[in-house]
Amino acid sequence: MKKEIAERLRDNSLLDRIVTAEEAASWIQDGMTLGLSGFTRAGDAKAVPMALVDRSKNESFKVNVFTGASLGFDIDKKMAEAGIVNKRLPFQADPTMRKKINVGEINFIDQHLSHVAEWVRGDVHNPIDYAIVEATAITEDGYIIPTTSVGNSSIFVDKAKAVIVELNLSQPAGLENMHDIYELGKQGERQPVPLTSVDQRIGEIGIRLDKDKLKGIVITNFPDSPSTIVPPDEETAIMANHLINFLREEIKAGRLTNKLAPLQSGVGSVANAVLHGLLESEFEDLEVYSEVLQDAVFDLIDSGKVRFASGCSMTLSKEKMDHVYPNIEKYKDKIVLRPQEISNLPEVIRRLGLISINTALEVDIYGNVNSTHVSGTKMMNGIGGSGDFARNCRTAIFVTKSLAKDGKISSIVPFASHIDHTEHDVDIIVTEQGYADLRGLAPRERARVIIENCAHPLYKEQLTDYFEEALMRGGQTPHVLEKALSWHTNYASTGTMLQKEKETVTI
Amino acid sequence: MKKEIAERLRDNSLLDRIVTAEEAASWIQDGMTLGLSGFTRAGDAKAVPMALVDRSKNESFKVNVFTGASLGFDIDKKMAEAGIVNKRLPFQADPTMRKKINVGEINFIDQHLSHVAEWVRGDVHNPIDYAIVEATAITEDGYIIPTTSVGNSSIFVDKAKAVIVELNLSQPAGLENMHDIYELGKQGERQPVPLTSVDQRIGEIGIRLDKDKLKGIVITNFPDSPSTIVPPDEETAIMANHLINFLREEIKAGRLTNKLAPLQSGVGSVANAVLHGLLESEFEDLEVYSEVLQDAVFDLIDSGKVRFASGCSMTLSKEKMDHVYPNIEKYKDKIVLRPQEISNLPEVIRRLGLISINTALEVDIYGNVNSTHVSGTKMMNGIGGSGDFARNCRTAIFVTKSLAKDGKISSIVPFASHIDHTEHDVDIIVTEQGYADLRGLAPRERARVIIENCAHPLYKEQLTDYFEEALMRGGQTPHVLEKALSWHTNYASTGTMLQKEKETVTI
Repeated sequence: MKKEIAERLRDNSLLDRIVTAEEAASWIQDGMTLGLSGFTRAGDAKAVPMALVDRSKNESFKVNVFTGASLGFDIDKKMAEAGIVNKRLPFQADPTMRKKINVGEINFIDQHLSHVAEWVRGDVHNPIDYAIVEATAITEDGYIIPTTSVGNSSIFVDKAKAVIVELNLSQPAGLENMHDIYELGKQGERQPVPLTSVDQRIGEIGIRLDKDKLKGIVITNFPDSPSTIVPPDEETAIMANHLINFLREEIKAGRLTNKLAPLQSGVGSVANAVLHGLLESEFEDLEVYSEVLQDAVFDLIDSGKVRFASGCSMTLSKEKMDHVYPNIEKYKDKIVLRPQEISNLPEVIRRLGLISINTALEVDIYGNVNSTHVSGTKMMNGIGGSGDFARNCRTAIFVTKSLAKDGKISSIVPFASHIDHTEHDVDIIVTEQGYADLRGLAPRERARVIIENCAHPLYKEQLTDYFEEALMRGGQTPHVLEKALSWHTNYASTGTMLQKEKETVTI
Repeated sequence: MKKEIAERLRDNSLLDRIVTAEEAASWIQDGMTLGLSGFTRAGDAKAVPMALVDRSKNESFKVNVFTGASLGFDIDKKMAEAGIVNKRLPFQADPTMRKKINVGEINFIDQHLSHVAEWVRGDVHNPIDYAIVEATAITEDGYIIPTTSVGNSSIFVDKAKAVIVELNLSQPAGLENMHDIYELGKQGERQPVPLTSVDQRIGEIGIRLDKDKLKGIVITNFPDSPSTIVPPDEETAIMANHLINFLREEIKAGRLTNKLAPLQSGVGSVANAVLHGLLESEFEDLEVYSEVLQDAVFDLIDSGKVRFASGCSMTLSKEKMDHVYPNIEKYKDKIVLRPQEISNLPEVIRRLGLISINTALEVDIYGNVNSTHVSGTKMMNGIGGSGDFARNCRTAIFVTKSLAKDGKISSIVPFASHIDHTEHDVDIIVTEQGYADLRGLAPRERARVIIENCAHPLYKEQLTDYFEEALMRGGQTPHVLEKALSWHTNYASTGTMLQKEKETVTI
C-alpha cells in the first residue's frame, strides 16, 4: 500500500496532506459550493461525498453540487436522500435525485455542458469553495492526473478556494498520459483553441496544482460504477441500419467519404446501440470526437473501425472495464480525454464538422426536440452536451424509438411539450420506422416527411389528421393550438395518446 | 459616366461583360437557385432581381432565392407578388412575402444566419446557379468589392456556377477597404479563425473573382433603401436604463469593466433604441461586434462612446445615410464589414465574450423565447442571427415590451407558443418593467423573477395564478398543460389574453 501510494503521490512534500475522507468532509460548511469530478459515472470523487452524506446524519446543512455530469456510486442518490443538496448542476441521472428535483426540493440547473466552465471561470456561477477531484496520481512536478473522466475538474481546481484530491488506487495507473488538459483563458483575452484534428494534443498531461490550495489528499480504492447500458436490441439494430443508409446517401451525394467525419454519440443505450451498428458497416478509419466514450467506441476500436477517439470520459460496462483496464496501454495511442469544455466546444465541433447522434425523448412534427422533460414538466436527466453538438456540428441526428410505454406514447407528437432543440438545429430524425432528412425543408415539408418516415403506423393517421386540420389554419408552422398539447393531456387522463375512437378500431 | 465606370471597373478585360439587367435576367431559368447579396436592406442586388420580376409578366417560372438576410428596394415584395419564389432563405422582413410564406406558397427556411454559408459550402443546400452580388468596384487584381453589406456574397460567388455583378455607382466609392473577406475552408480541413479582437483584419479587401465564372456586369445607380427604424420612445428609453443598470451591477460584481465587452445588438427598433441608450451611460471605449450596424452604432461612434464596430452590414435611416456616406473616410478606421459567417461565428462570439442584445416576440415564465412566430404559427421575419449570438455569447439579453396590441397581448406568457431560444440560452430578460437575471436559477426560480420583474401589472396576477396552479402539479418546469396555450387561444377567440373576470375588474 505504502509503495502504491508512493508511486502515485510522487511529491513527498505532500505526504502530510493525507487525511481521512471524514476529516476532509468535516471542512465543508453549510452553504458552500463544491466542484466534484465525475462525468456519467466515470472518475467521480467518491469517498468525500460519501463521508459528507454520513456527516449529515448528525448535522443539518446544504451545499451546491457542481460536477462534470452524472455521478456513479449512488452519490447523487445518497446526497438527495440525505437532503444536503441545495443547487445541482449541470446534469444528473439518478431516480431519487430526479424525484427531489421534480418536487422542487433541489434547484437543478440544466445547462449546456460546455457552458459550465465558462460560467465558473467568469464568476457567474457561485464561487467554488472546494474542488474535490479524483486522481490517478499527483506527479513530481505538481500535476493532478485525472482518472476515467476529466469533466470540469480542471476549471474547478483552477478556481476553487481549496482543493481535495481523492487519490484512487483502484484506477489503472496506466490512465496517466491519456489526458490533454487545456485552459482557454478569459473571454476577450484568449487565443483560438488550436485543435484541428481529433488526435491532436494541445495541452498538458494533467491539471496544474497550486500546492497552497491543496488542503487534503484522501486515499481511496473504489472502482467506478459500471454503466447500466442496455445492450442493442432488434429495434436499435434497425435504427442503426437507417442511420447507415443515411450516411451511404451522404457519400453518394459527395458530401462524405467512406471515412465519414468525426462522430459524436450521446450518452445512453440507444445512441450506444446505434453507434454499435457501425461495426457491421463498410465505413473505415473512423474518428470519434465525443463527450462520453461508451462500450461501442471500444468495440469499434477493437475491430479496427475507429482509428482514434477523443472524449471527456470513459463510461464502461463491468464486462468492458474488465477487458479495457488490463489492456489500457493498448488504447493509449487511440484515446485522449479532454475537459468537457473542449470535448463540447462549439469552436472545435464546427471546425471538425462532426456527425452528431443524440437521443430525443419526443419530437414534434416540425422537428423540435424534447430531450429532457417527461410530459413537458418532469425532468429526466438534463440536456447534457446535446445542445453543444446539435447546434454546431455538420449534421445533427436525433434518434428515438417511435413508441414508448407499449405504444401508449408516441414519440412523434403534434407539439413538443418541452423544447431543448429547436427546428433550426435538428437535421435528421431516426426511428425504427425510418429516417427523415429535414435539411433545407420548410416546416410544412418537414411535417410530411417526419410523419411519413418516422412515426409509428399506430399514430400516423392521428398525426396526419392533426396536420391537415392545422394546415386549414395556415402559418409557417401550422398548429391547432387548442389541440396542440391534447396528446399529452389525453395521456395524463386516459393513459394513452391514442384517441378513443382509433383505439376501438385498432383493437 | 464612362469615367466613373472606369474608376470602378478597373480590369479592362471585363468591359465586354457589361450587359443590361434585362439580358442578365434572361439567363435565369425556371428551377434555378440564386444567391443574392443583401443583408437587412443593405447592399442588395437590385436591378437583376427587378428585371427578373419584369420578365415574369410574360413567362411562368420559379427560383430559389438565397440571400444574406432581408432585402430592401421592395425586392422581396415584388418577387412574392410575381409568384416567382419557390424557396426563400434565411431571413426576410417583407409583409407581402410574409403572407405568401404563411399560406404556404413560398417555402421559407428559417436558418441561423451563420449556418447558411456552411450548408452552401458543404453542398447541403441547393447548388447556387447564379450569384448576383452588388459591388462598389471590381479591382485590377480581380476582387469584387462589396457595398454596404457582405452577407453571404463571398460564399455565393465562390460556389456559384456563374456570377453576375451589379456595379452600383451610387454606392460610395469610399466603401472600398472597409471589408474583410475571410474564407473558412471545408469542415474537417480548416484552421482556427484567427480573429481575437473586433478590429482585427484577417482576410482580403474583397471577394476573389474567378473571371471565367463572371457572366455579366450590370451597371446600376440605385441607393439602398433606408431603414424603417422607429426612433426611441419613452418605453425603450426605460428599457435602456434597465439594461444599463444590469451592466452596472456586472461591473460592481467584477465581471465587467467600464469598457464592458464587445456588444451585439439585433436588428430592429427596440434593440436599436436600447443600444442608443448607451449614449447617456458612463461606459467608455466600447466595442461592437454585431451583424447589422444600425443608426445607434454610428451615433455611438460619433459621440466617441464606441471606438470600433465590426458588422456584416450598415443599415441606416435616410438621415443617417446623408450624414455617414459623405464622411465615409472618417469611419474607415472605426468600422469593418465581414461575411455573416464571421460576424455570427460561434467560435468568435464565444472567444470575444460578447454581450448580446436581441428582441423577443414573447417569453414564457421559464425564459423560453419566441422570436419568430405570431401565436405560434405565423412567421414574422425569422430567427436571424439571434441564435448564433444567444447560444455562444457571454451574456444573452432579450428585450421586449411587456405588452403588445394595447395590452391585449402579454409578451410574458405561461408557455411560449413557439420556441427559438430555449431556457438554456436566455440569461437576461429586459422589459420596460425591469430586468430579470436568470443566470444560475432553476426554472421555478426563473418564473418568480420573470413574473415579478418583467411582466406588466395587468397580467401579473394572472401569471402568478397559472404558476401557482402549475406548482401544485410539480415538476422541474411546472405546467398546467391543458391551460398552457390558453392565453393564445383566448386571444384568438376573444381578442385579448386577459381573462374575462379580470377584464371586468380592470375596466
